[in-house]
Amino acid sequence: MSDITLLTEDQLRQRLDLDARLIDVIEAAFARLSGGGVVMPPVLSMHLPKVNGEVDIKTAYVPGLPGFAVKISPGFFDNPGRGLPSTSGMMVVLSAETGRVRAVLLDNGYLTDLRTAAAGGVAARWLARADASRAAILGAGLQARLQLRALRLVRPLESAVIWARDPAKAQAMAGQISAEGLPTRAEPDPRAAVVDADIIVTTTPATAPILHADWLRPGQHVTAMGSDQPGKNELAPDCLGRADLYVADRLGQTQVMGELRAALAAGLFAPPLAFPELGDIVAGRHPGRVSARQITIADLTGTGIQDTAIASHVLSIFA
Amino acid sequence: MSDITLLTEDQLRQRLDLDARLIDVIEAAFARLSGGGVVMPPVLSMHLPKVNGEVDIKTAYVPGLPGFAVKISPGFFDNPGRGLPSTSGMMVVLSAETGRVRAVLLDNGYLTDLRTAAAGGVAARWLARADASRAAILGAGLQARLQLRALRLVRPLESAVIWARDPAKAQAMAGQISAEGLPTRAEPDPRAAVVDADIIVTTTPATAPILHADWLRPGQHVTAMGSDQPGKNELAPDCLGRADLYVADRLGQTQVMGELRAALAAGLFAPPLAFPELGDIVAGRHPGRVSARQITIADLTGTGIQDTAIASHVLSIFA
Repeated sequence: MSDITLLTEDQLRQRLDLDARLIDVIEAAFARLSGGGVVMPPVLSMHLPKVNGEVDIKTAYVPGLPGFAVKISPGFFDNPGRGLPSTSGMMVVLSAETGRVRAVLLDNGYLTDLRTAAAGGVAARWLARADASRAAILGAGLQARLQLRALRLVRPLESAVIWARDPAKAQAMAGQISAEGLPTRAEPDPRAAVVDADIIVTTTPATAPILHADWLRPGQHVTAMGSDQPGKNELAPDCLGRADLYVADRLGQTQVMGELRAALAAGLFAPPLAFPELGDIVAGRHPGRVSARQITIADLTGTGIQDTAIASHVLSIFA
Repeated sequence: MSDITLLTEDQLRQRLDLDARLIDVIEAAFARLSGGGVVMPPVLSMHLPKVNGEVDIKTAYVPGLPGFAVKISPGFFDNPGRGLPSTSGMMVVLSAETGRVRAVLLDNGYLTDLRTAAAGGVAARWLARADASRAAILGAGLQARLQLRALRLVRPLESAVIWARDPAKAQAMAGQISAEGLPTRAEPDPRAAVVDADIIVTTTPATAPILHADWLRPGQHVTAMGSDQPGKNELAPDCLGRADLYVADRLGQTQVMGELRAALAAGLFAPPLAFPELGDIVAGRHPGRVSARQITIADLTGTGIQDTAIASHVLSIFA
């Protein structure tokens, strides 16, 4: 195994963080996804109701990269009661030429956190108005903080509003972000939280809508990144009906586990679905936002290509 | 990562081999599969025609075991030209309670080789006549040798015949097995190879049948273990038509990637399919072979439960 790179979470945290370079890496991956040649099978999802857990396995082969990742993402929701985080996991990198194991990244989900936030950065970079300065974040977990950090890397944010089901968590996060230099307040009413925002990010495990169409205003961009399972739903279906532009990270995924699923179930759209994917916009195959008054929605479920991209980036850093 | 067990192929080879204990372990796993509560999602299969490769990912949660395995099995068929084996891979063991990574088994496919052969042993133990003494093996690869070793652990073999597409390989294998104490000959005609056998094992990557129904005789048992992909096929569909008893390792798999797939395509059977699974016989839910004149067929595609079983066995050995 001398030829296998083995990296721990600590090693990864020391060398890799959410920055503009990482957003570029993830952005390039989405462009490749649009370009064809990528092989990305459906997510293998294992549900373990007996132990209140689930495991998702994602992979994607990207032509031109020397390796591809297989990511194992467990979520065990009784863990917090044991003093452990709900999510963990790791990535394995296989040689794209021989299939041999090249690396084992024992990241406990750190790389997933980063590549998920970076996708939010890519979505905002391509869909939010260039002058977007006010962010609203629904949710106050780790990903809420990371999504806000990603937004600051791509747009000239001047303020943020946080809403969360638990007001104390929203308050704590607002205090922390303010201390980091971005004036941020907690807002107990979600409608009031989003009404003046240029960019809204929903980052919760909600199974019933937390954002409604009549709250939206012209020019807003919404990134919904909480839904990654068929039971989750953050946006009321009419949000998608009201949007001028709906963009999926991967249409084959969002229609079964993203916000699009609920909208389809509500009868808002019928196949064939002609929505663009984020990579189509990055690659110039779709114009994306064409006016400052459009309402845009990015539906992010998380794709194997992001895992292969960040894992390849890690190997280039540690090479 | 101090709490993660990391084992290499060398370490595994030193402590684990194909023996009666391992066949018992795999047999118990099949019984559990029959008993319910097992969660075994469909195989994630990624085909990479550009690099003549494929990757299969299997997993299974088994109630009562402390962990479950996720196995990554790459097959890259241009590897032999580079001096590398076609198949490799590894297993990750996650805690069944918390989902945290408990072990990384860098086995390069060794555990898959063993658990696959062990399943052949289980099939013969439950389906071949008790006095079966003559084996015919179609195929001369590593798994051909291992399947024959597994048969010797469960039946009083006195002789074997080897057929392979490459007669030189059959000859070499026959010489080697004879030197190991079992009189074995190579036979260039597959019909002549199987006609006097009590147990026939097909262990090839064939995509067109290598065994035909009118070659079979009363009392024979056939284990077909080569097919594990929708394009593979070792048994002519009429073999399944002629058999008195067809047994799947997992019916949901054999109908899409085993010998049953071709038989269904040929119109031999129609849903609902009422065939037993190997675990049903082990668990006593199906009688299995009931006379010395029955022809039985075991269709083995390889299941995630075998991976979880052998990985758990490994951890108990190295604990």
